[in-house]
Amino acid sequence: MSAIRHALSIKRQDDFAQWYQEVVAAADMAEESGVRGCMVIKPWGYGIWERMQRLLDARIKAAGVQNAYFPLFIPLGNFVREAAHVEGFAKEMAVVTHHRLISDGKGGLIPDPEAKLEEPLIVRPTSETIIGDAMSRWVQSWRDLPLLLNQWANVVRWEMRTRMFLRTSEFLWQEGHTAHATRDDARAETMRALEMYRAFAEDDLSLPVIAGEKPENERFPGAAETWSIEAMMQDGKALQAGTSHYLGTSFAEAAGIRYQDREGGQQLAHTTSWGVSTRMVGALIMTHGDDDGLRVPPAVAPQQIVILPMLREDDGDAALLAYCEALRASLAGQTALGEPIRVLLDSRPGKAAARRWDWVRRGAPLIVEVGPRDMTEGKVAVLRRDRLWTEAGKPDFAFMPRESFVAEAAITLASIQQGLHAEAHARREANVERGIASFEALADFFAADKRYPGWAEVPWARPTGAALDAVVERLKALKLTFRNVPLGAGPAEGACLFTGEPAVERILVARAY
Amino acid sequence: MSAIRHALSIKRQDDFAQWYQEVVAAADMAEESGVRGCMVIKPWGYGIWERMQRLLDARIKAAGVQNAYFPLFIPLGNFVREAAHVEGFAKEMAVVTHHRLISDGKGGLIPDPEAKLEEPLIVRPTSETIIGDAMSRWVQSWRDLPLLLNQWANVVRWEMRTRMFLRTSEFLWQEGHTAHATRDDARAETMRALEMYRAFAEDDLSLPVIAGEKPENERFPGAAETWSIEAMMQDGKALQAGTSHYLGTSFAEAAGIRYQDREGGQQLAHTTSWGVSTRMVGALIMTHGDDDGLRVPPAVAPQQIVILPMLREDDGDAALLAYCEALRASLAGQTALGEPIRVLLDSRPGKAAARRWDWVRRGAPLIVEVGPRDMTEGKVAVLRRDRLWTEAGKPDFAFMPRESFVAEAAITLASIQQGLHAEAHARREANVERGIASFEALADFFAADKRYPGWAEVPWARPTGAALDAVVERLKALKLTFRNVPLGAGPAEGACLFTGEPAVERILVARAY
Repeated sequence: MSAIRHALSIKRQDDFAQWYQEVVAAADMAEESGVRGCMVIKPWGYGIWERMQRLLDARIKAAGVQNAYFPLFIPLGNFVREAAHVEGFAKEMAVVTHHRLISDGKGGLIPDPEAKLEEPLIVRPTSETIIGDAMSRWVQSWRDLPLLLNQWANVVRWEMRTRMFLRTSEFLWQEGHTAHATRDDARAETMRALEMYRAFAEDDLSLPVIAGEKPENERFPGAAETWSIEAMMQDGKALQAGTSHYLGTSFAEAAGIRYQDREGGQQLAHTTSWGVSTRMVGALIMTHGDDDGLRVPPAVAPQQIVILPMLREDDGDAALLAYCEALRASLAGQTALGEPIRVLLDSRPGKAAARRWDWVRRGAPLIVEVGPRDMTEGKVAVLRRDRLWTEAGKPDFAFMPRESFVAEAAITLASIQQGLHAEAHARREANVERGIASFEALADFFAADKRYPGWAEVPWARPTGAALDAVVERLKALKLTFRNVPLGAGPAEGACLFTGEPAVERILVARAY
Repeated sequence: MSAIRHALSIKRQDDFAQWYQEVVAAADMAEESGVRGCMVIKPWGYGIWERMQRLLDARIKAAGVQNAYFPLFIPLGNFVREAAHVEGFAKEMAVVTHHRLISDGKGGLIPDPEAKLEEPLIVRPTSETIIGDAMSRWVQSWRDLPLLLNQWANVVRWEMRTRMFLRTSEFLWQEGHTAHATRDDARAETMRALEMYRAFAEDDLSLPVIAGEKPENERFPGAAETWSIEAMMQDGKALQAGTSHYLGTSFAEAAGIRYQDREGGQQLAHTTSWGVSTRMVGALIMTHGDDDGLRVPPAVAPQQIVILPMLREDDGDAALLAYCEALRASLAGQTALGEPIRVLLDSRPGKAAARRWDWVRRGAPLIVEVGPRDMTEGKVAVLRRDRLWTEAGKPDFAFMPRESFVAEAAITLASIQQGLHAEAHARREANVERGIASFEALADFFAADKRYPGWAEVPWARPTGAALDAVVERLKALKLTFRNVPLGAGPAEGACLFTGEPAVERILVARAY
């Protein structure tokens, strides 16, 4: 295998963090903007996010949730009202204090002291406050419930140390906000959103995840329950890829979301919120990327098939382009994974080989090269991004009749979609240790000299309050965190690793992003 | 006609501005948020915007333009660099000066003086600055051109007096930004975007518009040419519904967008920008709304057909709901205007008649009521929103066999789409006066006692500089503005109304939003 000349300069096993940065750049996903903590999402990266939006939005709408749009700004006073919310939330956020610029007399501009806002505005870090305010107006009677809302928006949380897609000051997300008459209804919605995220991750992103409940210390501030989906990255760390919160009645109380029940009494609504962000793009990279760049699952690939004509800048080019255009059209007329196949004919100037590696790094699922001789013979040369190399270390082109390729394209794409999932799923299952029975064994499993140890699923007694805090501190010393209590975990047996008490459930422990 | 009991309390002819506000509220489009100048876009209003996005985005992608995403914030220093840009642009904008809150010791929060930004950040009012900066990195060679980018984003321009959808401090839009090797290429892109907007407005929104070039005084600051589409509202005022700018090389110079040409020389790129915003929703209301609320063209209606079962809260309801669900499914399986029909079965509690008027005010194109007897007879009662009343002043229900309705639904929707356009087009053409030959006649046409005078298309000599400023002042005294020089206007004849010189082209004059 040493013969392979990979398309990236850094390998995952040598320096995962540096490898990640190289993929983001080499796959043309994003770059630093020059604005502190904010990134520019480039067309290929944004195209993947658009595909994620399209597929998740369809799931959101199918559940009867309606999209709406709420203001970017929150008046400081409204924000303060939600005391519990504010207490737990980081106070690192962008504060607008002026609404006009004036000349500084030296050719520059400064905030106009005359245009200082009476009350500063916060750029939304999340929209519970502002949407709760609207809900308090929209909900009057039990007939108005459930109220199921979602918005796609940008939010800002001032971050000191940023990493593209994983932690940026501004990021894009969807935030669902719902109000219900009863606890049961709201909890059912919390679980529906969680299951929606699980299915979205597994089916659309080929991303195996574990859905479960967060322990008390990891709850969204003010929430009664927080649930998450957790994905394992190739360095064994966990990434929280989506959360769903049952907020109880505390947010409804702060915002005044009350309704008249069927008997005429006044009741507080039960609310939920749930979100998935551009962080998911980072999860995609760290799950499916390899030493040649990104591999995009076909369902979210902006282009599923890229056709590269081997142009020679001579008279033969016109016929070759026409041949490739006919190939493009016949592929685009087909359906794969429930949608028309997205196929690009890349006839930009430059050598085909250079463009091939460009698309390998970006992770287009299928790359098709067509030269003049292929055209004459009615053939194409097909490179599957998920099986890039021969055993001899050469690009593993399949030469096949054009008609066969077209006829099989949809099945091939579906096979890549499933194959990426199977690969990631097998890797995760090989790296979750479920047999650890003592804290010492846990510490040993995550010993400093073990590079990518994976996760441990261990029995615990679900301590709360100060007892939980003490456990969290012990984990923190080992740079470990609780992830969640998996919905599908086996029954708890034996003693809690942390308290020695009889275990009541099993919880995941891991290093995390 | 006096027998009609309209669904709104205010008629267009009585108070157009108040009528507009009532439609926005009664059609459940948007409301004040409590945050100065920002609105909440409610699900029905946002659903229309989502439909606009979907259709315009497809046109943008079909032209080879790629979506990307750029930061919300612009460092003040970058902003100042574009001197011409800053000079003309309103300096009313949101300024971020702090990145953290701290307790004020009295239970509140204040911006932390320790967390004052060294350089304030502007919340983007438009993104020429930030996208130009990226283009300067991405464009190196002639091979990188054209660079065709678009982003869907929120922008903020601090407004003192706001009107929902028409002028709000935060609004949603798309902004296209492109860079080209030559003036010809950039001007061709400017005209392509203009034609894209014209077709989008006319075909998707049933909105007749006049495309043309803005006079010098109405140009985007720093632009070489500004083109617009202008739509006539039902009060005769003009609304600029989209703009496309050829920016010359001045923005490229400010941002440093240079490329190496085929001969190895360094050249400045020619850039364009073009945008359409949520203002388009306001245009839709003021073009298609009537005294019963909004009428949404089927292509952008979130729901094209609403089925209302006349439930009696008895044992018969289950069969009626099943009948309506089968009707819904058979409609949803059909294609209208190139997409699956969007149909809603509204089985919320409450009387069918109340819900009928709810959907009339929202402007759903077709409302179908089904009672137990209709079910037995295999019939439905259909109300076309574009032909709501009989001559006798009753809701004009068509009772027809269910199968006929289903078979004709797609054709009916297409007919409503065309009918709304034809109605608006006829109204506009009846209200553009092309025979005015003197400034006095122009002033008379727009005399204060004429309620909704419409537009005047007049010959002019295309004055520039101070001569133009003087003309603009005279118009301003009459509350009039130049709209554009229509692409399709007839040849100029006679003397300029404003300067007396020989006319060179014809220009539209109107009151405007």
